[in-house]
Amino acid sequence: MLNFKRDFIPGSDTEELMENAFETIRDEKESGRIGYYLLPKSSQVLVEEVETFSKNNPVLNSGKIKNIVVIGIGGSSLGIKAVDSLLCHKNNSGRKLFLFENSDPLDISQTLSQLSREESVFIVISKSGSTIETTSIFKTVIAHFDLDLEGEDSSRVITITDKGSSLSEFADSYGIKQFNIPLNVGGRFSVLSAVGVVPLLLAGYNVKALLEGASSFLESFFDREEQHLLEKAAFYAQNSKEYPINVLFSYANKLENLTKWYVQLWGESIGKIDHNGENVGMTPIGLIGAVDQHSFLQLIIEGPKDKTVTFINIDDFENPLTIPDVTLKHIEKTDFINGHSFNELINAQCEATKQSLLQSDVPVDSISFDTVSEENIGAMIIYYELLTSLTGAMLNVNTYDQPGVELGKQILYANFEK
Amino acid sequence: MLNFKRDFIPGSDTEELMENAFETIRDEKESGRIGYYLLPKSSQVLVEEVETFSKNNPVLNSGKIKNIVVIGIGGSSLGIKAVDSLLCHKNNSGRKLFLFENSDPLDISQTLSQLSREESVFIVISKSGSTIETTSIFKTVIAHFDLDLEGEDSSRVITITDKGSSLSEFADSYGIKQFNIPLNVGGRFSVLSAVGVVPLLLAGYNVKALLEGASSFLESFFDREEQHLLEKAAFYAQNSKEYPINVLFSYANKLENLTKWYVQLWGESIGKIDHNGENVGMTPIGLIGAVDQHSFLQLIIEGPKDKTVTFINIDDFENPLTIPDVTLKHIEKTDFINGHSFNELINAQCEATKQSLLQSDVPVDSISFDTVSEENIGAMIIYYELLTSLTGAMLNVNTYDQPGVELGKQILYANFEK
Repeated sequence: MLNFKRDFIPGSDTEELMENAFETIRDEKESGRIGYYLLPKSSQVLVEEVETFSKNNPVLNSGKIKNIVVIGIGGSSLGIKAVDSLLCHKNNSGRKLFLFENSDPLDISQTLSQLSREESVFIVISKSGSTIETTSIFKTVIAHFDLDLEGEDSSRVITITDKGSSLSEFADSYGIKQFNIPLNVGGRFSVLSAVGVVPLLLAGYNVKALLEGASSFLESFFDREEQHLLEKAAFYAQNSKEYPINVLFSYANKLENLTKWYVQLWGESIGKIDHNGENVGMTPIGLIGAVDQHSFLQLIIEGPKDKTVTFINIDDFENPLTIPDVTLKHIEKTDFINGHSFNELINAQCEATKQSLLQSDVPVDSISFDTVSEENIGAMIIYYELLTSLTGAMLNVNTYDQPGVELGKQILYANFEK
Repeated sequence: MLNFKRDFIPGSDTEELMENAFETIRDEKESGRIGYYLLPKSSQVLVEEVETFSKNNPVLNSGKIKNIVVIGIGGSSLGIKAVDSLLCHKNNSGRKLFLFENSDPLDISQTLSQLSREESVFIVISKSGSTIETTSIFKTVIAHFDLDLEGEDSSRVITITDKGSSLSEFADSYGIKQFNIPLNVGGRFSVLSAVGVVPLLLAGYNVKALLEGASSFLESFFDREEQHLLEKAAFYAQNSKEYPINVLFSYANKLENLTKWYVQLWGESIGKIDHNGENVGMTPIGLIGAVDQHSFLQLIIEGPKDKTVTFINIDDFENPLTIPDVTLKHIEKTDFINGHSFNELINAQCEATKQSLLQSDVPVDSISFDTVSEENIGAMIIYYELLTSLTGAMLNVNTYDQPGVELGKQILYANFEK
């Protein structure tokens, strides 16, 4: 279960804003124009497809596979990493996820050195089918492991892409399995599509539970039982000039990749030229507590009051590690913590930081995981996707495109053609 | 060598601002009020001390030590991690750095499980001497490894702290070695003091070269040969309301921890109530290219024009990995990249992104490492410390304190005493 608290309220004039945004996204959903709303249900079928595929794939059922290797970047990696980081300590499948996601030669070399062909399945993910990092790394993997795509290794590779993309046509022509991303699901909203389902399921995660958690939060929202979400979006949209920076302060190392997923979702969706030609958007920042209390907190408290802060904490880490009853001469004043668990300490730090921000007039809200579970992560994903769609609708932007990144790609191509 | 480029210039009215800031920090240095300016020279002596200590310490010269384990947070860990991440792939010492830096139970448990007592030396770092995360983890380490601090394990522990702190008194009373941080060196400016020197040297890094790189950049600055630094600070200070967000966009995974070090340094130093009682400051953000082109770039280009962007790239990764001459049916349009190295690709991406930001009127500058070396990292550290001191002086803040974080600590203590 997720527990939501909020210490700010939107202005009394936001009723219409909220109703219009709700109508907009209900229409996106019901018209089928935007596809991510359907994934929590539709991907349940996909889970069965992947299970059947896995049983019949000679490489996957060889008993040798330990490495599920994903080649993807941005929307094709961030969601997978977010889920994997949160759950990997509970994963007893004997399989591990590896991700190639940057054109950094040292990083690629290091990851290659950890893998063997025999123990690996390679999943190439690109919505457009021609992402330069992804195709370059894929070629490197083919050469490094001497993969025979026209022979036995065609079962060692899986592609995930839009139907009809160049990667899709590639897969067809080599007899390589492909799973497709619905055309109406954007990359950064795609973690509950094949993009996340296939690698996470093959790596041993309970994807059904992830989808169920997403599904029940989504239903609850469209049943008007998550009014807090509308109110948060309204507060953010209404105050986007006063509070242009939205900090997600997560109290667990394992949440770092979830904050990175959030940064893409929020930044790339809302940072737009709006329907009136104005540059709008809010800047997302991910912090990790308690570490960043020693790094960023000073700025939030005494710097410009331009930030909202959302705390995420985990009530129960399911880990008993306790500060032992050790007394060290001259450091006795820290003994008040002895006998308490680190679970208590980190949550007490989260609470104390939250209180200090409230006293400093920073708009604060918080999301608590009762524990880290697939259901909760699924709900969290949908929560942020809905928040993004609502806020985008209120700010009059196209939440689902990213025209601003095209220029850099054109320049890159042109520079190479010189 | 570091190469600096800049595509913005400060206003013509900033001459006095620059001269005053230069005088302020020269005075900080010459009066001895602020100590970090002296570290590149003074820590050379420390290097020799640590080398002698290491030769005579029965644990360190036992031939068994593989793990240099640091317990520290914020200024007591970020700089160490920044240097280690950049250089660890070249470290042939047979030793590895481990850091405990969060009160996260899962993280602590996982790190503990990787260590054995016999192979480890533990370095406890806390400037104040009573940081709650650090002392709690230290006690946990003592209990977990059953360390006998009154006996043989007193040589297995090293403390780094202010002379006279509670941790300093603790060390004295158990006969544990301590290295001190000069009292006039703040935590976030302390990486070139014992805080960084001791663990980095014991882990096998060439700390002398790190200090030399720092020293020569520092001298060059005070010889007025780094005017670009003054001009950058002036541009930032003068436009801190128009551009309140400063992005550091680093094109190498290994630079991620340097960006985290920068975030603390910049955020905690500049985010202040100024001498007129106004909340001032600028928000630092660390990004990693090419990954974050797929995440954050859209917002920079089409969102509010509230960001400056500094690119960091590495001209020579000293890694030959090349995109092989593989042609895949239907993906032939990416073949233009075949035969090029990833080193070329990632730098071309950096350049293309920079050009796209320039065309979008974003103030941009860039710092190139010719290669990753201790000298360059040392220069980079001093570069950012000087930039911070200059900008702080121009904005009329106390660059070196952090009063805003005290409230949260008081609330934490009070909540535990309930």
